[in-house]
Amino acid sequence: MNGSRIDGQVRIVGAGLLGSSIGLGLRSRGVDTIVEDSSPTALDLAIDYGAGRAASAEDKPLLIVVAVPPDLTARVIAEELERFPYAIVTDVASVKTRVLEELRSTGADTSRYLGSHPLAGRERGGAISARGDLFIGRPWVIATGNGENKKMIGIIEDLILDLEALPILMSAGEHDRSVALVSHAPQVVSSLLARQLLGGSERSLNLAGQGLRDSTRIAASDPELWIQILAANNLPVVEVLEGVHRDLDSIIQTLKDTGKPGSRRAIAELLAGGNAGVSRLPGKHGQDRKFSSLVVMVDDQPGELARLLTEIGAAGINLEDLRLEHASGALFGLAEISVLPEVEQRLIEELEGRGWRIAEAYR
Amino acid sequence: MNGSRIDGQVRIVGAGLLGSSIGLGLRSRGVDTIVEDSSPTALDLAIDYGAGRAASAEDKPLLIVVAVPPDLTARVIAEELERFPYAIVTDVASVKTRVLEELRSTGADTSRYLGSHPLAGRERGGAISARGDLFIGRPWVIATGNGENKKMIGIIEDLILDLEALPILMSAGEHDRSVALVSHAPQVVSSLLARQLLGGSERSLNLAGQGLRDSTRIAASDPELWIQILAANNLPVVEVLEGVHRDLDSIIQTLKDTGKPGSRRAIAELLAGGNAGVSRLPGKHGQDRKFSSLVVMVDDQPGELARLLTEIGAAGINLEDLRLEHASGALFGLAEISVLPEVEQRLIEELEGRGWRIAEAYR
Repeated sequence: MNGSRIDGQVRIVGAGLLGSSIGLGLRSRGVDTIVEDSSPTALDLAIDYGAGRAASAEDKPLLIVVAVPPDLTARVIAEELERFPYAIVTDVASVKTRVLEELRSTGADTSRYLGSHPLAGRERGGAISARGDLFIGRPWVIATGNGENKKMIGIIEDLILDLEALPILMSAGEHDRSVALVSHAPQVVSSLLARQLLGGSERSLNLAGQGLRDSTRIAASDPELWIQILAANNLPVVEVLEGVHRDLDSIIQTLKDTGKPGSRRAIAELLAGGNAGVSRLPGKHGQDRKFSSLVVMVDDQPGELARLLTEIGAAGINLEDLRLEHASGALFGLAEISVLPEVEQRLIEELEGRGWRIAEAYR
Repeated sequence: MNGSRIDGQVRIVGAGLLGSSIGLGLRSRGVDTIVEDSSPTALDLAIDYGAGRAASAEDKPLLIVVAVPPDLTARVIAEELERFPYAIVTDVASVKTRVLEELRSTGADTSRYLGSHPLAGRERGGAISARGDLFIGRPWVIATGNGENKKMIGIIEDLILDLEALPILMSAGEHDRSVALVSHAPQVVSSLLARQLLGGSERSLNLAGQGLRDSTRIAASDPELWIQILAANNLPVVEVLEGVHRDLDSIIQTLKDTGKPGSRRAIAELLAGGNAGVSRLPGKHGQDRKFSSLVVMVDDQPGELARLLTEIGAAGINLEDLRLEHASGALFGLAEISVLPEVEQRLIEELEGRGWRIAEAYR
């Protein structure tokens, strides 16, 4: 890594997944990073993982990042503002309006506070899951509207850019409505759907496939964190859920009487609306770069996949992505290889020339 | 492949994804497979892809597999029963009760018909997406309750086993309720959720992450096929959706007034119910076998991943699964490697001994 934009100490309060990942990322750029946690065990673990050093009495942080659970965030921000009366303080909580309201109610000097929210995470929490590259290419909202000045914005942008994330300026209200739509309401819907599975027999559930697993994956998320998020962003979430509710009412009525004229059209409009909604989502690779994929059959024996990739490497072709599908009981796996479109044809020729079986080629 | 169980000709009517995939799988076992389609273009394509040969006047199929869209299925079954008055006929439609009702209403001799349904598919349709291994390890329901005899069941089981799928005997009603729960209602919910995205700004949608992409992935499915499925299985789907509706009502009321005593508990119960529902889903590898995973950092250069896998192969360790996460703009990728738990420790030692950086190790 090539140095940092941040020019000063950064103090991170809260050594969970986000705090530790920020620490790892900053340290890899040589930033003097201090990590603090109310749990000595969590703190020791984060320090062992390289997320930062322990605090000392001489610390003079330029920036403090509060990365504690949402319901503690305002209180900890207030404490940090008081303890370091020159430092800029930000936080990483998923809800911005409520945190600011709570902070104001403590009587704290909010002129040095500017909230933010990195749109990044993993299903697993804690320092043990932290990764310095967690934020690369992800949006990171800076929540404006609290009388912030250019200098404060600049320091938080430096933090975000040092972690290779994309700074986005947005009011706290716009942020909260946006995450209600793209994150909080989907969490509720996924949980509701998964909850229906409690009523199914084991025989029924054995028919489940990848579609159901994908659409309920986030229903496995940590309830403790999500209770706090949903409670803190309740009204924007309700607004989205009421839209789901209206559409659900309507499709239930339609499906109850499919003999009625217009029922096929009503179902079609629901499904087409879903198609159109999905197509509005940004692509997997952020900038929507399209890769070419092909699927190669690989014998299920040690070293076979390595031989495949050695031969790809020998041809000077770099993989952009790779997935191995390993069907249980099958004699081979399927390696789905993504490469830049301009090398796809050469890759196919190289592989077929070496006797590999390509199951399918498509863009 | 080592020969087939099926002992006779198989005629496949409908050269789409499922029909062509069945054809590819059977031919790889040496079965004399005939493919037929009302569209000459689709038929030629399927034959070019190796899904079967064209029909001839001398054909004497033992088994006919009807793989046409659901709303045509009963009519085509009736035609095939009449045209080949000795053959056993099955179909692969996603709904079983309605097909049988419609078939009976044609006055066809249903004693040679036994419906079935492979729980397999892809987002892409057509012969061009067909794969002979599409059914490997997937459940394939044989819908009982139509006075079928052992011999008919045996022939369809042979088909299923030749395709390396898992035959499951289930009444048509149980089948339809099961797929309503694990497939059809989730399709509706995913479409409903995706449809809400139409109301969001582009700035809001840019905050979307993998969770939303996963939970709305199936909302990109083909509306034409799904209109037919939902209309044909409407009442079982309504039953599941009414459960979602009740839970949605309740969580909206709770979130409207989070100050009320008990509201945190109500949110917690929803989320915990979602957790419990997801945990009932069978694992990715069917038999719920747990693999150990570890994440290795791989420089983003041609040949580096190959070197990693060569070294794993040289250690005699077989990969069960592999995913490469390639963060855009990053200098390295993360290879998540799954192996049998008993070799995990040895793998870690081998890799670290060779200088690889392991980002995380967990079970």
